[in-house]
Amino acid sequence: MDRIYLDNSATTRVSEEVMEAMMPYFHKKFGNASSLHTSGREAREAVEKARQQVAGALGADTKEIVFTSGGTESDNLAIIGVARAYCTKGNHIITSSIEHSAVYETCHHLEKQGFKVTYVPVDSDGIIKAEELKAAIRPETTLITVMHINNEIGTIQPLEDISEIAKENEIIVHTDAVQSLGKVNVDVDELGIDLLSISGHKLHGPKGIGALFIRKGTKIKSQSFGGGQERGLRCGTENVPGIVGLGQACESAARNLDGNSAKMRRLRDRLISGALKIDKVRLNGHPAKRSPNNANLSFSFVEGESLLLMLDMNGIDVSTGSACSSKELEPSHVLIAMGLSPEEAHGSIRFTNSHYNTDREIDYVLEKLPEIVAKLREMSPLYRPAAR
Amino acid sequence: MDRIYLDNSATTRVSEEVMEAMMPYFHKKFGNASSLHTSGREAREAVEKARQQVAGALGADTKEIVFTSGGTESDNLAIIGVARAYCTKGNHIITSSIEHSAVYETCHHLEKQGFKVTYVPVDSDGIIKAEELKAAIRPETTLITVMHINNEIGTIQPLEDISEIAKENEIIVHTDAVQSLGKVNVDVDELGIDLLSISGHKLHGPKGIGALFIRKGTKIKSQSFGGGQERGLRCGTENVPGIVGLGQACESAARNLDGNSAKMRRLRDRLISGALKIDKVRLNGHPAKRSPNNANLSFSFVEGESLLLMLDMNGIDVSTGSACSSKELEPSHVLIAMGLSPEEAHGSIRFTNSHYNTDREIDYVLEKLPEIVAKLREMSPLYRPAAR
Repeated sequence: MDRIYLDNSATTRVSEEVMEAMMPYFHKKFGNASSLHTSGREAREAVEKARQQVAGALGADTKEIVFTSGGTESDNLAIIGVARAYCTKGNHIITSSIEHSAVYETCHHLEKQGFKVTYVPVDSDGIIKAEELKAAIRPETTLITVMHINNEIGTIQPLEDISEIAKENEIIVHTDAVQSLGKVNVDVDELGIDLLSISGHKLHGPKGIGALFIRKGTKIKSQSFGGGQERGLRCGTENVPGIVGLGQACESAARNLDGNSAKMRRLRDRLISGALKIDKVRLNGHPAKRSPNNANLSFSFVEGESLLLMLDMNGIDVSTGSACSSKELEPSHVLIAMGLSPEEAHGSIRFTNSHYNTDREIDYVLEKLPEIVAKLREMSPLYRPAAR
Repeated sequence: MDRIYLDNSATTRVSEEVMEAMMPYFHKKFGNASSLHTSGREAREAVEKARQQVAGALGADTKEIVFTSGGTESDNLAIIGVARAYCTKGNHIITSSIEHSAVYETCHHLEKQGFKVTYVPVDSDGIIKAEELKAAIRPETTLITVMHINNEIGTIQPLEDISEIAKENEIIVHTDAVQSLGKVNVDVDELGIDLLSISGHKLHGPKGIGALFIRKGTKIKSQSFGGGQERGLRCGTENVPGIVGLGQACESAARNLDGNSAKMRRLRDRLISGALKIDKVRLNGHPAKRSPNNANLSFSFVEGESLLLMLDMNGIDVSTGSACSSKELEPSHVLIAMGLSPEEAHGSIRFTNSHYNTDREIDYVLEKLPEIVAKLREMSPLYRPAAR
């Protein structure tokens, strides 16, 4: 049996459609999109077609899309680029306490440079408190950056409300939408945001490519220096196959959104209801306002990492949280922000499916999970089984 | 007939070996290299194997290799990262007047931030004047950045001499070796440099991937913020297929260096000697100290762009200079630095071959070139054919 991959918030398999679209640009149509000859113009056309696909999936204009090397670079460019472009207006940024490291580490960096950052708390479901965000606004606030869907617990943030507050106060809004495109509808006008980051490999596109939506009129300072590609905002030879792959991934994600998200939701709910039958298991994050593919569960008296390894030995790939902080020994900052104790946070596992998963796979997980949890709890001096 | 691609300094075809190595990592072994499960560890192993291949090709240690999104990012990270890491020691940087835009635009950026930069001139062959470089050193000089092989005229710079001077003065040396790996021997110890940038797509690897060699002990400040990948020096999910492709490209380039460079040199010399038979044509750059694949030629009384377009109509891809500045109307800063007049610079064409080119292709170019040049000169009011 193949492995059961339930870590799709870490990365996803490149789809057949994306593979097919990308392939010719490696070794047949391999020109440099900035070259003037036929091979170059062919590459340029492919890049611009992909830009249309990305813009189309987001409800944006092609002129508002800049290709980057991934979600982290998009977040870095958005936050540093806007903070620096508006630094004569003010030096205050507002974000949430549950952002991805690509956002919070960038905010920490800006703090060292003299910027001020407010980290707005979340409620016990992991939803940002919009009223507290509103109260944090100062005359010198220039940027609000709040993620769309949290990468660990899958909660969908009230971006529309946040943009509304921002607009009233003439503040730029950025969102890290790396986990939302392909899971829920992402429309830059409906969300009301000014900048939005996406990443290819989170939506069955390739790694090493991403994009940043920058609403027309938004000032931003480039953070890379060179040949002036992407209107000077992102220098370096265009990654043509990657861009083509991202374009196709966005087009496919938008076209198949309803069917894929319904399937992911069904698989997720099957897993959650099965897992909750196990004693002392709780779902982290909002029960309804959550990504269709995310089930983040706390197993009391179990070490998340041990559970991960036991599942791994049974051919099941899951994670304890963000892959980007897998090497840290600290408990998840997201779960702690929601009010979990360090022990509860350490006993949490993230299952994130994709439309490639099957009911049979979920059933296999649900067959193995109780045995593994029971075995691990046997080793815990604190665990007492529920009375029967 | 297929097109004749003679613009390999702009970008190259991905080789069969590289394609084969990369493919599984898109849709079969697609894990995130930072994930702890089996799929993640499989990706991690691939990344570390590629790091060995890159280190091996450069004579470096694996701990000295950081993967980036390409040559531009490597140059940006090296220059800004070192300038900032040593800014308490000094704020002066030395570079040459013929660097790639990824270096000189980065230097311009640092100048705006208060750093001082000296641009050392080159001689009429495009070789940097090491004595002038030495004279430019100040107590506050922290970094010298000089390219290995120039991207437009192919001249090989006297890096060993430059590193020697740098070492005597305890100054860090960076080199953009994007055009040299796969063309000439590149050994970080023999060259004596501290940082070295490479790019996948210039050596039959994929676009969107590069690496930076950072000699052990060299201080450098990260320019990206996130999950702490690449020891915190380059954050963002590792581009596993790209990294695997770069590793294979480096391994192949090192293994086939002698054969490939001999073939490129033969094709280059065949093209140069044929082209020089045309009236009023000159070779730009040093006749011997040049890349085996580069023939940069000035055609008097001809507009380079018109020549490029006429060759393009005949199925031949060439360039007027750097693809990264193809949209500028200014004459090449490299040719101007060598002492060419703007008119001569505007009449220059860069032919850059690879081991995929054939003698037959070169012969076809040499058949077409005199006709095209003659036709264009007919339109020039200034041209008078040589007396017969």
